[in-house]
Amino acid sequence: MRYRTVAELAALVGGQTIGDGDLLINRVAALDEAGEGAIAFVEDERAMERAKKSHASCLIVPEGVACHTPACIAVKHPKLAFARIAAIIHPREQRAPGISPTAVVADDAVVAATAYVGPYARIGAGSVVGERTEIHDGTSIGERVKIGDDCVIHPNVVIYDGVTIGNRVVLHAGVVVGADGFGYVRAVDGYCKFPQIGTVVIEDDVEIGANTCIDRGALGTTRIGRGTKIDNLVQIAHNVQIGARVVIAAQTGVSGSTVIEDDCVIGGQVGMGDHARVQRGAVIGSKAGILPGKIVRAGAVVWGIPARPLDEYKRLNALWGRLPEMRTELEELRRRLRELEERARDVTQE
Amino acid sequence: MRYRTVAELAALVGGQTIGDGDLLINRVAALDEAGEGAIAFVEDERAMERAKKSHASCLIVPEGVACHTPACIAVKHPKLAFARIAAIIHPREQRAPGISPTAVVADDAVVAATAYVGPYARIGAGSVVGERTEIHDGTSIGERVKIGDDCVIHPNVVIYDGVTIGNRVVLHAGVVVGADGFGYVRAVDGYCKFPQIGTVVIEDDVEIGANTCIDRGALGTTRIGRGTKIDNLVQIAHNVQIGARVVIAAQTGVSGSTVIEDDCVIGGQVGMGDHARVQRGAVIGSKAGILPGKIVRAGAVVWGIPARPLDEYKRLNALWGRLPEMRTELEELRRRLRELEERARDVTQE
Amino acid sequence: MRYRTVAELAALVGGQTIGDGDLLINRVAALDEAGEGAIAFVEDERAMERAKKSHASCLIVPEGVACHTPACIAVKHPKLAFARIAAIIHPREQRAPGISPTAVVADDAVVAATAYVGPYARIGAGSVVGERTEIHDGTSIGERVKIGDDCVIHPNVVIYDGVTIGNRVVLHAGVVVGADGFGYVRAVDGYCKFPQIGTVVIEDDVEIGANTCIDRGALGTTRIGRGTKIDNLVQIAHNVQIGARVVIAAQTGVSGSTVIEDDCVIGGQVGMGDHARVQRGAVIGSKAGILPGKIVRAGAVVWGIPARPLDEYKRLNALWGRLPEMRTELEELRRRLRELEERARDVTQE
Repeated sequence: MRYRTVAELAALVGGQTIGDGDLLINRVAALDEAGEGAIAFVEDERAMERAKKSHASCLIVPEGVACHTPACIAVKHPKLAFARIAAIIHPREQRAPGISPTAVVADDAVVAATAYVGPYARIGAGSVVGERTEIHDGTSIGERVKIGDDCVIHPNVVIYDGVTIGNRVVLHAGVVVGADGFGYVRAVDGYCKFPQIGTVVIEDDVEIGANTCIDRGALGTTRIGRGTKIDNLVQIAHNVQIGARVVIAAQTGVSGSTVIEDDCVIGGQVGMGDHARVQRGAVIGSKAGILPGKIVRAGAVVWGIPARPLDEYKRLNALWGRLPEMRTELEELRRRLRELEERARDVTQE
Repeated sequence: MRYRTVAELAALVGGQTIGDGDLLINRVAALDEAGEGAIAFVEDERAMERAKKSHASCLIVPEGVACHTPACIAVKHPKLAFARIAAIIHPREQRAPGISPTAVVADDAVVAATAYVGPYARIGAGSVVGERTEIHDGTSIGERVKIGDDCVIHPNVVIYDGVTIGNRVVLHAGVVVGADGFGYVRAVDGYCKFPQIGTVVIEDDVEIGANTCIDRGALGTTRIGRGTKIDNLVQIAHNVQIGARVVIAAQTGVSGSTVIEDDCVIGGQVGMGDHARVQRGAVIGSKAGILPGKIVRAGAVVWGIPARPLDEYKRLNALWGRLPEMRTELEELRRRLRELEERARDVTQE
Repeated sequence: MRYRTVAELAALVGGQTIGDGDLLINRVAALDEAGEGAIAFVEDERAMERAKKSHASCLIVPEGVACHTPACIAVKHPKLAFARIAAIIHPREQRAPGISPTAVVADDAVVAATAYVGPYARIGAGSVVGERTEIHDGTSIGERVKIGDDCVIHPNVVIYDGVTIGNRVVLHAGVVVGADGFGYVRAVDGYCKFPQIGTVVIEDDVEIGANTCIDRGALGTTRIGRGTKIDNLVQIAHNVQIGARVVIAAQTGVSGSTVIEDDCVIGGQVGMGDHARVQRGAVIGSKAGILPGKIVRAGAVVWGIPARPLDEYKRLNALWGRLPEMRTELEELRRRLRELEERARDVTQE
């Protein structure tokens, strides 16, 4: 356990100390569960009522808000400051360097002296593992794989031959990187496999969730850009190009050759057809469907199957709910119209 | 193979023997495939035609139904009785106790003498494995993991540090429990990881399907309640609370902090936003989408994206199919209205 | 690297050589990336503009098209010819036969002398591995599993007891075959497991993507037919019957006992209810939902949730987008109708 004073933590996040700066903090906690020694955060004004009842020793609060705990740290972005402080107080436990005697490392693989390789891990010929990188137990790393520094490859991950991984990349358990893409050509007697001989490049600071699959390019490269975060059970097909700082929630699938530009936010269970392009900063709502070849404009917020601008989707969805009413109105109009027509006929006949 | 008499089996399920109670049964089978020595079941009256053609030695039938096979067992719930009899006749083959010489078990881990630990399994420091529990080959169990009695952890499962698992829990191959939740805070230069330092508690009698992922809580606990059954490739996010006896079909995803109360039934490929609440006994149809923060009322049956009460969904869906007709009617009304208007103008001008 | 002359390659695919048949080819490439020594293909007329700028040594072109590179091979189906040539120039690297000293192979398992079994693989009692089949590192193969000739089982795959796999089958990393199906019977105090004691049969020439799950039959058999190709993260439930040459894209889920006949094409993220039947050659669009018990007619193309014929789906979807317009028209009609009604009343009162 690491103790820090409130003043130290305030300095770390560039915040202003209110109250007792010498208080010792040894853990982070949720607002409602924090007790003595804990630091919590107040996201915004709406959380202030809950904040008043908190037993935390210190709260990280938005600037200009009253402090009801022994100490507070006032900052512009409390949640971000909280995340940074958590990383200091609860650093990930690092594995001691060294290669487990039961790991199978190819003679010509190069593993940094500061790296960790766990029990029953396998590292193939010509592969490279960087400084302080952890290859956890049961992981399978193929041939000619390059893994940078400070990565964590969790247990039972599988990385196929020839994949390149940057620095500070985290792959959670069960991730598969570089399996063959799904491409076949129909022949008379069945399907002939289209070559899947490209590769995968994962850039720095990417984190990929458990059991997610990133297929290798057919002829070229599947690329996951710097700082991108991908949740569990996501499918990234061959030749997909994902930019920097993209966020993709769980169970989303991206079909072949689709491009997602920098800073996009993709919800869960989204499906994207092949050769689509999601331009910079676009937001795609959960469960949306993007048609093959579709272009989602920069900064657009889209929703639905097939996806439409959020405003339009909401309007249509509301109208969908009013279909029974429209149906009834239509019938009423028809009835009134018939009456009028009859009356008009009568008038004419008079 | 275990032989049982019809009378013994009838007694086990509190049923009434019809016909030859001394007949020997050595296996269960589907109605159409059952032969001599096999027991099958007739779910309800509709299955009686198929039952008449069955070659089973014994049928489990609903009470009050005629018996066409050498023996029958009459019970209230034939399918349930069949399941119970199957568990007697075809018990799961248990692994002999013992720790494989190739398993890597930390010095201070505690493995019950009656437990099985398979080849190449890893069990970290401070972890506990209960009586008769089977840890199959290739499984990775982190540090400080508690696993109760009579569990079966299938091959290549990964359990992260600090997870707690009750008794009689079954985790199928490739399950990942306790990986980091998906939480980041946007900073100027990219995403900063929100702490994912909580844990997972899986209560007694839970079964979890292959390659499903249960993330650890961010600060608190992700909980799977007693007797809950989860299918393959399901995603359970951080801090989700699932009650007792909940059923969740394949490929469903539940976002962070969502609560599913006892006895709910969730279809396949359902997506739930974060901070939603599905109250006791609600039923959610396959592929439904539950919006963030949404409350699904106790006992409700909902369907669609976004989810609506099933009746309403069905009506709307039927109307959706009649949109072309509504469109046509609308045009017809407009035409007739125009005629009337013209006539009215003529009348006025006369 | 293997060199072939253009003429040799043309002969292999029954194509016509145009230009220099003696040119040496040592790799395949995408049209835009091909350089000296590379062969690429021109799928159809639309790609001809890009073809003119290609630096490939040889292009595979549709018959009757002009050749702008040093050599061309004219064939009926350029993409298929390209796939076949790629398989010749870039054959998969085969593992040398032999059983790794760290593999755990049961005494009575039978592994062909030409097969490869990688580090830390486990093969259970009574299992059989055929000629030239590769069982990669970390794979878990249960008891009484039969695997045919020329298969590739990638790392960390799990095959449960009693599964049968044909020849030339490829299972990608993390695949789980034969886990228990998801079947329970509700009892007073919770769920009772329905027996999941059937098996799985995977026929010849099947390829299955990473982390896909194929459950065993409850009482019978789950079957994947010859030449079928399944993408990543797909869920195939108990007793599903899939015919020959079916293609199923990523993240699709097929519920229990559903039948997919030969030559169907199923998109990604499709969900199929139980006991449905997709007849021969039907095409199901991505994200479609097939209701339980539904029959999709032979050769039909369906789309949407629930699925409808594509034409109808497109029309309905277009009309859905015009709901606001219909709403407006409806209001306009009502207004005009009211005016007419008032005028009619006036006329009557005159």
